[in-house]
Amino acid sequence: MTVEFRTHPSRYRHWSIEVEGPVATLRLEVDEHGGIGSGYELKLNSYDLGVDIELHDAVQRLRFEHPEVGAVVITSARDRVFSAGANIRMLGRSGHSDKVNFCKFTNETRNAIEDACTHSGQRYLAALNGAAAGGGYELALACDWIMLVDDGSSAVSLPEVPLLGVLPGTGGLTRVVDKRKVRRDHADFFCTVEEGVRGRRALDWRLVDELAPRSRFAEAVGERAEALAAGRPPARGIAWPDLECESGTDTRRYRHVEVTIDRTARTADLLLRGPERDPPPNGAGIEAQGTGFWPLALARELDDAILWLRHNELEIGTWLLRSRGDLSRVLACDELLDVERDHWLAREVRLFWKRILKRLDVVGRSQIALVEPWSCFVGTLLELVLGADRAYMLRGDEYEERPVRPAQVALGPLNFGDYPAVNGLTRLAMRYPEEERVPETLRNAVGRPLDAEAADAFRIVTFTPDDIDWEDEVRVAVEERSSFSPDALVGMEASLRFPGPETMESKIFGRLSAWQNWIFQRPNAVGERGALMLYGTGRGADFDRRRV
Amino acid sequence: MTVEFRTHPSRYRHWSIEVEGPVATLRLEVDEHGGIGSGYELKLNSYDLGVDIELHDAVQRLRFEHPEVGAVVITSARDRVFSAGANIRMLGRSGHSDKVNFCKFTNETRNAIEDACTHSGQRYLAALNGAAAGGGYELALACDWIMLVDDGSSAVSLPEVPLLGVLPGTGGLTRVVDKRKVRRDHADFFCTVEEGVRGRRALDWRLVDELAPRSRFAEAVGERAEALAAGRPPARGIAWPDLECESGTDTRRYRHVEVTIDRTARTADLLLRGPERDPPPNGAGIEAQGTGFWPLALARELDDAILWLRHNELEIGTWLLRSRGDLSRVLACDELLDVERDHWLAREVRLFWKRILKRLDVVGRSQIALVEPWSCFVGTLLELVLGADRAYMLRGDEYEERPVRPAQVALGPLNFGDYPAVNGLTRLAMRYPEEERVPETLRNAVGRPLDAEAADAFRIVTFTPDDIDWEDEVRVAVEERSSFSPDALVGMEASLRFPGPETMESKIFGRLSAWQNWIFQRPNAVGERGALMLYGTGRGADFDRRRV
Repeated sequence: MTVEFRTHPSRYRHWSIEVEGPVATLRLEVDEHGGIGSGYELKLNSYDLGVDIELHDAVQRLRFEHPEVGAVVITSARDRVFSAGANIRMLGRSGHSDKVNFCKFTNETRNAIEDACTHSGQRYLAALNGAAAGGGYELALACDWIMLVDDGSSAVSLPEVPLLGVLPGTGGLTRVVDKRKVRRDHADFFCTVEEGVRGRRALDWRLVDELAPRSRFAEAVGERAEALAAGRPPARGIAWPDLECESGTDTRRYRHVEVTIDRTARTADLLLRGPERDPPPNGAGIEAQGTGFWPLALARELDDAILWLRHNELEIGTWLLRSRGDLSRVLACDELLDVERDHWLAREVRLFWKRILKRLDVVGRSQIALVEPWSCFVGTLLELVLGADRAYMLRGDEYEERPVRPAQVALGPLNFGDYPAVNGLTRLAMRYPEEERVPETLRNAVGRPLDAEAADAFRIVTFTPDDIDWEDEVRVAVEERSSFSPDALVGMEASLRFPGPETMESKIFGRLSAWQNWIFQRPNAVGERGALMLYGTGRGADFDRRRV
Repeated sequence: MTVEFRTHPSRYRHWSIEVEGPVATLRLEVDEHGGIGSGYELKLNSYDLGVDIELHDAVQRLRFEHPEVGAVVITSARDRVFSAGANIRMLGRSGHSDKVNFCKFTNETRNAIEDACTHSGQRYLAALNGAAAGGGYELALACDWIMLVDDGSSAVSLPEVPLLGVLPGTGGLTRVVDKRKVRRDHADFFCTVEEGVRGRRALDWRLVDELAPRSRFAEAVGERAEALAAGRPPARGIAWPDLECESGTDTRRYRHVEVTIDRTARTADLLLRGPERDPPPNGAGIEAQGTGFWPLALARELDDAILWLRHNELEIGTWLLRSRGDLSRVLACDELLDVERDHWLAREVRLFWKRILKRLDVVGRSQIALVEPWSCFVGTLLELVLGADRAYMLRGDEYEERPVRPAQVALGPLNFGDYPAVNGLTRLAMRYPEEERVPETLRNAVGRPLDAEAADAFRIVTFTPDDIDWEDEVRVAVEERSSFSPDALVGMEASLRFPGPETMESKIFGRLSAWQNWIFQRPNAVGERGALMLYGTGRGADFDRRRV
């Protein structure tokens, strides 16, 4: 079954969006029979990938369609239950990569919620009108403010360890200690007590921010939302139409992005096309173009292509990143996004690119950037080169024994801080790991086309073969990559891609996910007598008691 | 087979120690037929747990027996080969927990080398007189300075990914980018090229610090070692006699440490006994007592008990930490170690405790501290309470319905910075995650006995049941813990135990190990057609190509 990530509120089955002035409400009412897969019922507002695809769309949409919104309430339309988290039967039936991909996507969406809170001033409020268990509470943890109904029974909980023999897989363990600053001994207790923690103790232990009795819960949530949204400037959003693309067996074509799969080589070519015209003169012009503004149009397409490939093409282990277009036009777009720094839409476009580039950081595929004569890896697009596991750039003015304009790249103003990677560093800074900061000469080179020698000197690319070596060198690199154990590559890339400092995100993707992946393989979870498989059957798990 | 970690140079089969003034040389000449297990030959200076147990002993011993040593050369006695790393056939034959335990121990020993370089001024120099592959190069990475013979063939390499479908499991990936500051695209290339990198490129890419031709390699190493050791003050070490203990089926008894296993409950009681007499008056007195000095004697015993339990008692998933003794004597020892801060032996004792406490951070067992009326959790020993996943302290002056002196704990001067955990924070600071620093009131309480109410107010303990609830509450906690999936607990504890910042160590144990553990479970590595299993057979691995 092929999964599509494109959706629209008119097609939502599980969420509703309501916008009233500066406050939006996302209300969860999962359709029990609306699972994206079969063989399970989504009881108690439990969710699967399909439910989360809608949430992902809603969070994204609110930023572009409703910049006037300053507070987003996430709550449940069901009585006395917020959400029971990821559906267990769905997890039990899923294969290993489905489980891992599901967790990765839900993690990214929760990170996007935090990104909206921090950088777009759309502050999320979790209004827990009933029990929030597992992934339900993890969704709340991604919000800026957590309110829990104080009714003597509604609790927050992470029952995965005691109940299922797995971890809370969507950042819960990390956020409890690192974001909520819960004492680690309290966290230990909390994460091992099936029924969770409620009322006063939940507040005292910093698991929630506020309690309110059921009788005035709605009122208290409304007040808090108004307070969070206070001072939000009015603004008018842009339309967010459906994204169009054409899918073949081995291709997926958007307007600016073309994906071509080579199943023998197990590679996918991601070709990004530069702008067809010059950018508009200012922020108002960006608004007028809306999703037609090239950087935004490309972003939407690339994001969808990444999700689609990652989820549906598991055996395609190496992605070749290519581009084609006019350097100066790409640069002009970056300059506009820089100059109109304070315009809401320019900011949202930059933030969207930041999130896409982070998705590439954790995508679980090898990435090789190929900088060819006709390419346009400039500014924002240059991040793909810097973020790739390796970058090859053709040196000289011949290609396939014919004269060509030499391949060029260029730095733009956004390469120096707008796109921090998952570890918080810029990709350029990771090229200078031994330096305190990126050398000043790079800043002075902004906007200047750099040939292979210069790009090499600036450490932008890894290897610069000339026409004589290019084909062989690239071919060998791709073939070798493709011959290695995909598991070892995933682990290696997760270790090499985020050097230096750690962030909550790098902990979630680097550490927590790794442990969860390990546990998701273990017979104690997924064996015939594993806890995840036996959940709900009334039979207890039969553990191999050896500690590892 | 029970593994013992106690050894002595007179019984070494693989390493030799030579001390000449301020320079020591550890020379590796692995006895091919001296494997700790059977069914493999330790060719090309490849190693197994037995080889590493000797290295661990040597590194430890040099600090206490030879404080005059300022530089330690690690080299090979074999011609043109330094070390081929961990033995592949041994890994292929090992069960999952053996592999994981082996990696953990070797990691700890490499960390101990770095600790000696940084904190004891014993600087390690890797003299690579030939190829250093995999774990061989990882051992070099743990050293302060790496010299490689420049002979046109000797290379450093991490061939695990291309050759074996697993990761370099002893910190290699982390150290390459985080310690050596190798660019991540260079690291990507290096870690996927079987034959490694040699000569000039190895130097340019920061993989080694110095090259020397074979003809003057020994001379250059000697000069560098002298330079590293320059200024090392002369000192006389203490004797490091064999550690005595008595092992039964379910017990292991040292002079100050008693381990009692309850196989039904799957718990081990670790009882630590306080000093039998007052400490000596000063540093000279500590030297005179040598390994008889209580904090050192206890440290040696506890370290051995931890290693022994961890390696040999896999099903014993919960450790109960107990103590018994005189509070004021424990405190007096801490005060002496604080006052004699600059005395070499006092420093070594503190550093030894730091390493032991870190071993507990990553031990892969649940730890519950029980603070009872007769206990002496003070200062250094209080770290066990603060480091445990949870701590219970009896409140009130009754135990089993009889009057007792109330349980007490006390802070000592060493709790405020001498024992950073794996994440670089003190265990006390982790009790105040939301604060910039530990409140001043805690410093003012140093040396003052604290009853359960006070310990609770200072966040030292998690729960303080009174006599009526104590037995039930502790029993339920232990039984519950013991009933959970051991895998989920390992993952949960690895996520909750190191909140806040990351260090190279937390990355190695938290992230790299997690990925390696995952890979060690995957059919692509350990299945019938897995790369690790087929190595050396001439048959290629047959991978499940799906990326996860």
